[in-house]
Amino acid sequence: MGEFDLIARYFTRPARHAVTGVGDDCALWQPQSGMQLAVSSDMLVEGRHFLSTVSAQRLGHKALAVNLSDLAACGANPLAFTLALSLPRVDEAWLQGFSHGLFLLADTHGCELIGGDTTQGPLNICITVFGEVPPGDALLRGAAQAGDDIYVSGTVGDARLALEVIRGSLSLDAELFETARLRMEQPEPRVALGLALRGIANACIDVSDGLIGDLGHIMKASGVGAVLTTGWVADSAAISPALQSLPLSRRLDMALAGGDDYELLFTAAPDQAHAVQEAANDCDVPVTCIGRISAGQGLQVMDIHGVPISRRFVSFDHFSS
Amino acid sequence: MGEFDLIARYFTRPARHAVTGVGDDCALWQPQSGMQLAVSSDMLVEGRHFLSTVSAQRLGHKALAVNLSDLAACGANPLAFTLALSLPRVDEAWLQGFSHGLFLLADTHGCELIGGDTTQGPLNICITVFGEVPPGDALLRGAAQAGDDIYVSGTVGDARLALEVIRGSLSLDAELFETARLRMEQPEPRVALGLALRGIANACIDVSDGLIGDLGHIMKASGVGAVLTTGWVADSAAISPALQSLPLSRRLDMALAGGDDYELLFTAAPDQAHAVQEAANDCDVPVTCIGRISAGQGLQVMDIHGVPISRRFVSFDHFSS
Repeated sequence: MGEFDLIARYFTRPARHAVTGVGDDCALWQPQSGMQLAVSSDMLVEGRHFLSTVSAQRLGHKALAVNLSDLAACGANPLAFTLALSLPRVDEAWLQGFSHGLFLLADTHGCELIGGDTTQGPLNICITVFGEVPPGDALLRGAAQAGDDIYVSGTVGDARLALEVIRGSLSLDAELFETARLRMEQPEPRVALGLALRGIANACIDVSDGLIGDLGHIMKASGVGAVLTTGWVADSAAISPALQSLPLSRRLDMALAGGDDYELLFTAAPDQAHAVQEAANDCDVPVTCIGRISAGQGLQVMDIHGVPISRRFVSFDHFSS
Repeated sequence: MGEFDLIARYFTRPARHAVTGVGDDCALWQPQSGMQLAVSSDMLVEGRHFLSTVSAQRLGHKALAVNLSDLAACGANPLAFTLALSLPRVDEAWLQGFSHGLFLLADTHGCELIGGDTTQGPLNICITVFGEVPPGDALLRGAAQAGDDIYVSGTVGDARLALEVIRGSLSLDAELFETARLRMEQPEPRVALGLALRGIANACIDVSDGLIGDLGHIMKASGVGAVLTTGWVADSAAISPALQSLPLSRRLDMALAGGDDYELLFTAAPDQAHAVQEAANDCDVPVTCIGRISAGQGLQVMDIHGVPISRRFVSFDHFSS
């Protein structure tokens, strides 16, 4: 099968909102008047962002999910995406699974494939996603204020837990492992929550490098410090049953520095606490308060008794791990 | 150097037109009211789209040029782009050259880097480019009309000529080889010509797969046939001095099926002939009439005496070569 047949068979669907869809030199798109565009691009490489053992369907889901997660972190509404795909060979079963997983998630969020590229080479998936947001409403990293509460959505640490089990450094009950593995291989982008937090949250980011690393991005961009509590790691909605089966110290590593969570990490003024919980309830996603933004510089991590922890938590960096 | 340092050092410049630039989860962009967005994405892989011997600066240029060429083919005005980069290792000299070549071309066309991604893996460059075009003004593949003249801009066949010399299947005077090699490694996207052809040309595409292959895309999308003359291969502005040094039959292969030219292949009604030449003069790019669109199906290639040629010209397909 040639490049053009491949595109036609697996990646061409009738244009819906796009003026022209897949198949011309460019896709044409008419943005809604007055809205800002939010654009994000992520590249996934085997061995770094996914394991060779992942199913094609879950990989198709994840490739789009990590991009939708960036839109969610900005409070942007997904519109469309492009897909560039480098494949070692044409494997029809793989392409069928990949495109199925991709389009299932795309349809859930009304996000249309409008163009892209396919070529032969080492497996590489690059998606660029477009969303829209009313001017001034986007959630940004640099908007945290001293005194803000810090929240995280859903559960953190599960993706890293699954990875450690696969690596053989931990063992886990088979059923619990499957729940953690699903979180690693098929994360759910918090698009609805990101939209619901517009006008409520101040700063927001999605947790991809690890909670502490991504909190560091907020602190740097906002020029603030933070105090992170850890009582919530002992017992809260942010820790899954799978992670709760681990001793507290291992749990702490996974939750604070695990990465690949694709949850929203955000800050909000204390008087928004009720609105935050209402937004979370409306979206059926738990949110947990995990600390507070401080006026100074630097991060203090407190143990469950409120005593500062001095050890380092190393987060994920694609060029230094 | 870690991922974030690398982005900061080589790929972060102050936002100009973008509301936020490189460094947040998404880039934010305010489109001009009423304009259509044109979006294109291309992925470049070593050994398929460039050779390992290419200089980093030329590669930075080419990675953006092939995307700008897609905007040119639609008559869209370049605005911004995202860059996703997978690198085997951090090589500062390479990054400096690559970003220099990239930004030189970007600045020439006022096209701003607004975001992207870097990761470790086999060398892979994925750029997604955004342009704007007034609604209804975009040049599309499907707009060719029976009776239209077919034109090509600049010169064709040089990139393939350089490749064949490097492969050792042809030899060429050193100075002529360098001119052909520059065309292969550092193609100039015909952005100004694409803009000038709005309202003049009917169908348009850029020549990446090879002239005959790309003409096939116009024919299929427009539901028309074509008659291609070849007298222009014997003597016209579309054949460079380098290619003219070859015997006619080899020249024909390179010009008609070489690929990687990034010239504009377009059609226009005969009464637009003067306007086409004026647009070309204004942009300082030669255009050559190379045939005519016909009402029937299929392509007829005529030899320089006007006799149909029956041999096949195989164009480039990323999965079947």
